[in-house]
Amino acid sequence: MQKLQIFDSTLRDGAQGANISFSADDKIKVIETLDKLGVDFIEAGNPFSNPAEMQFFQKVSALKLCHAKIVAFGSTRRKGITPEEDNNLKSLLAAGTETVAIFGKSHIMHVTDVLKATPEENLAMIYDSVSFLSKNGKKVIFDAEHFFDGYKSDAEYAMKALSSAADAGAYALCLCDTNGGIFPDEAYEITKKVCDTFPSVIVAIHCHNDGGLAVASSIEAVKAGARQIQGTLLGFGERCGNANLTSIICNLQLKRGYECIPSEKLKDIYESAMTIAETANTAVPQNQPYIGMNAFAHKAGMHADGVLKYSSSFEHIDPAVIGNKRKFLLSEISGKSAIYDKLKNYFPALDKNGKEMGEIVTALKERALQGYQYEAAEASFILLVEKILGKYKSSFDLVNYKIINEQPAIEGKVASAIVKIRVNGITRISASDGEGPVHAMDLALRSALSEFYPTIAKVSLTDYKVRVLDSDKATAAKVRVLITSANSSDSWTTVGVSEDIIEASWIALTDSIDYALMKQ
Amino acid sequence: MQKLQIFDSTLRDGAQGANISFSADDKIKVIETLDKLGVDFIEAGNPFSNPAEMQFFQKVSALKLCHAKIVAFGSTRRKGITPEEDNNLKSLLAAGTETVAIFGKSHIMHVTDVLKATPEENLAMIYDSVSFLSKNGKKVIFDAEHFFDGYKSDAEYAMKALSSAADAGAYALCLCDTNGGIFPDEAYEITKKVCDTFPSVIVAIHCHNDGGLAVASSIEAVKAGARQIQGTLLGFGERCGNANLTSIICNLQLKRGYECIPSEKLKDIYESAMTIAETANTAVPQNQPYIGMNAFAHKAGMHADGVLKYSSSFEHIDPAVIGNKRKFLLSEISGKSAIYDKLKNYFPALDKNGKEMGEIVTALKERALQGYQYEAAEASFILLVEKILGKYKSSFDLVNYKIINEQPAIEGKVASAIVKIRVNGITRISASDGEGPVHAMDLALRSALSEFYPTIAKVSLTDYKVRVLDSDKATAAKVRVLITSANSSDSWTTVGVSEDIIEASWIALTDSIDYALMKQ
Repeated sequence: MQKLQIFDSTLRDGAQGANISFSADDKIKVIETLDKLGVDFIEAGNPFSNPAEMQFFQKVSALKLCHAKIVAFGSTRRKGITPEEDNNLKSLLAAGTETVAIFGKSHIMHVTDVLKATPEENLAMIYDSVSFLSKNGKKVIFDAEHFFDGYKSDAEYAMKALSSAADAGAYALCLCDTNGGIFPDEAYEITKKVCDTFPSVIVAIHCHNDGGLAVASSIEAVKAGARQIQGTLLGFGERCGNANLTSIICNLQLKRGYECIPSEKLKDIYESAMTIAETANTAVPQNQPYIGMNAFAHKAGMHADGVLKYSSSFEHIDPAVIGNKRKFLLSEISGKSAIYDKLKNYFPALDKNGKEMGEIVTALKERALQGYQYEAAEASFILLVEKILGKYKSSFDLVNYKIINEQPAIEGKVASAIVKIRVNGITRISASDGEGPVHAMDLALRSALSEFYPTIAKVSLTDYKVRVLDSDKATAAKVRVLITSANSSDSWTTVGVSEDIIEASWIALTDSIDYALMKQ
Repeated sequence: MQKLQIFDSTLRDGAQGANISFSADDKIKVIETLDKLGVDFIEAGNPFSNPAEMQFFQKVSALKLCHAKIVAFGSTRRKGITPEEDNNLKSLLAAGTETVAIFGKSHIMHVTDVLKATPEENLAMIYDSVSFLSKNGKKVIFDAEHFFDGYKSDAEYAMKALSSAADAGAYALCLCDTNGGIFPDEAYEITKKVCDTFPSVIVAIHCHNDGGLAVASSIEAVKAGARQIQGTLLGFGERCGNANLTSIICNLQLKRGYECIPSEKLKDIYESAMTIAETANTAVPQNQPYIGMNAFAHKAGMHADGVLKYSSSFEHIDPAVIGNKRKFLLSEISGKSAIYDKLKNYFPALDKNGKEMGEIVTALKERALQGYQYEAAEASFILLVEKILGKYKSSFDLVNYKIINEQPAIEGKVASAIVKIRVNGITRISASDGEGPVHAMDLALRSALSEFYPTIAKVSLTDYKVRVLDSDKATAAKVRVLITSANSSDSWTTVGVSEDIIEASWIALTDSIDYALMKQ
């Protein structure tokens, strides 16, 4: 298998993305995760940008990595000074990494109009900078900014920029589609020209996703001879993001016979992606290719049947190979097979063709008519099945609740709740105020239950969603509430439906608590 | 410019996506939006799947569309019966659309292993079904399921399946990458073979995004000769979604010289996408190519400077061309010109470069930070401007309200509200019960106001929407409420934001009443 180098820029280009920021500890976690996955290069930041970044490189040099090389990022020297006088280049030396990446201009119009330099001056800046770093023992990756647009505008000059870097001893020439607008066929043709011209240097590809084509363009560049792929594991990056490395790695390694990461690591890629998403405090989009929660989820009864009969019907790969899972979404259009498949792990004794399965399918359809949707609320579905099978044991009974919402607010709180419950014959009443009625109710209920179920304190509500179902009934419309809860090891979602948003929230909330206690 | 046909399946394949479901009214809104945008075909559902779907086609036939053709979806006839006996084909006739799409098998292993039919039997099923529908006056699009995988496994049989459809009079042959695993270069090569073999039939491409390559593969298929592109405007669809039509349309129309939609409509594509996302109660991912909120957002100071110096530095297209906007993160949101444009009809005396315009822009930014969105709530925006201009006169003052929500319900009602207001120094208190707290509050407020403003009785609330803004704060999250109201001649939408859903609803509700009274 031909080996390709994977170069991750989550910590540098990825951190340019909206809502993405990493603390120093976060960065260490990202580096360790990428290293464990078998990524070759990890671009960790620009040591010249501020003192904290430089300190970070010192911290990183103490890390014991098993595979990856850390890369410091900077730029070619400034106009009119020598490399020795350039603080940016000096800080690249001081960062102490074996490999550095520097960007420079290769698009003639950017040289003359943005940099305000002569064409020759820019070539000298590239040559001098690469040469200075090489002579000081660095492996230099030259990032040719706006390379593709530059090539289309003035191919000869764009190639001269690469030649300057190559002549000065660059380890790799990286072709950047800085504004993300190229097409895969252009990526192929232009990369091919570069690979033919520089047969003895590694050619790298660096795409942005502004046209939704970054994965495809990276793959085409590899076909044309590129041997290093730059991107970010989850596609983080400015605007529409950088090339998504999970998609590229999975596509090339599973279907095109390249080795991007060690083959025994491929099954960890889903988990690694989740770890990095969590570290960045973002969620992987549910429909993300390969690693999304729903990347292998099936809804239509027909499709679900197809998958069970013949797994390649609606699956391009076996999800287990990358650590992801097949999933059947529960909806009124799910067939019996899909529902059974979902339940058999929870209820091993359930008979697929028995009377109880019939009751479950019927209940699901009736609930769907009322507005319940279980595809995202599996915990509530399991509780519903427990009830049908006569196995459900409620963890408490509601005696009554009363929630008061008022304006003007009292000491800044607009809502207060009184909740009275009974557990094993013992009654407890508790009260709380809150930011809104559901918040107050949630706090009061937990407080009343805490004496009986101390573990409830470890459950937190992490997500709350509301959808108005028949919105043309205006304020008398039905609403569906979804609540996601989590403890240290697990997360689950429950659903409630009612014309009354408080009642809908109450239903989802009690399901959430019932489920947490049932699992213990 | 070569014209390509755009075929949107948001309502059929798109509705297979997790968390995507449309009411009948939602579907009408989606159809009207796509039609206005200039999409050629709109696949509206499978009339055979249930009676509600069939009723929906009857409703749709009454719509006056300016451009699009509605398509009913079904399958080839079942084994062992004639088309005349097949209820699915009969319901396609009954749906009353000029165009129908039917899927059938073209992958030999699916014929023998899943369908359990002989190869010849399947070809007859295709021929009979297309022929039956054609003879009954329908334009038939034949969806060759698993076509690309089928072609790779047995090219001769896959082509025979297409021939059966073509010989029977199919209007278009649609090549489906059902499990979403093909690469752009394969899409090109295989589509080219099909186009060469069937030069007189329209060839369509239908990709899924499991490899993150659906946009690229669709584009390559067009290069190979496909003249119809199937997908969903926002990429909705099962698993990783269908090919995203906004990306495809923008890429092909702006950069490759094809006409996908009328050129004067391109500037509406951002707005159309937002409308469909809102209707589906989902948000467009912020980093979505072309239409994402951050698709043209710049974070790095360097980049932002670059854009200002030389706009193509970090922008592959001018965002205004598709109705999107350049954005600098942590700064500006909406341009003054756009805001002025919106206001000049309401406030003819407003000076575009005056101090008041500056205050309006600032207020809008502050409100946006709080979670207010005025795009869909123009009435609230007009009221906000009235307040800034000192022209606002409130129609009533709130003294206080108290809303009580309780379980068990009292005579079937879970909520009751007391509202005390003051108009011209006269105080009135009124109470009501309701289906939920907002309903009770709405009724009590109207009752208290009715003596002063009898016309309020003619205003009805027609739509109520709730969106949780920072859903990871769970039940303490901020919510945005949108209320649409109407009288006999007009309809308007108002917005309220708060951590407390009751307060958010109250804000939107009082805006709605203020606006109604102001207009008189």
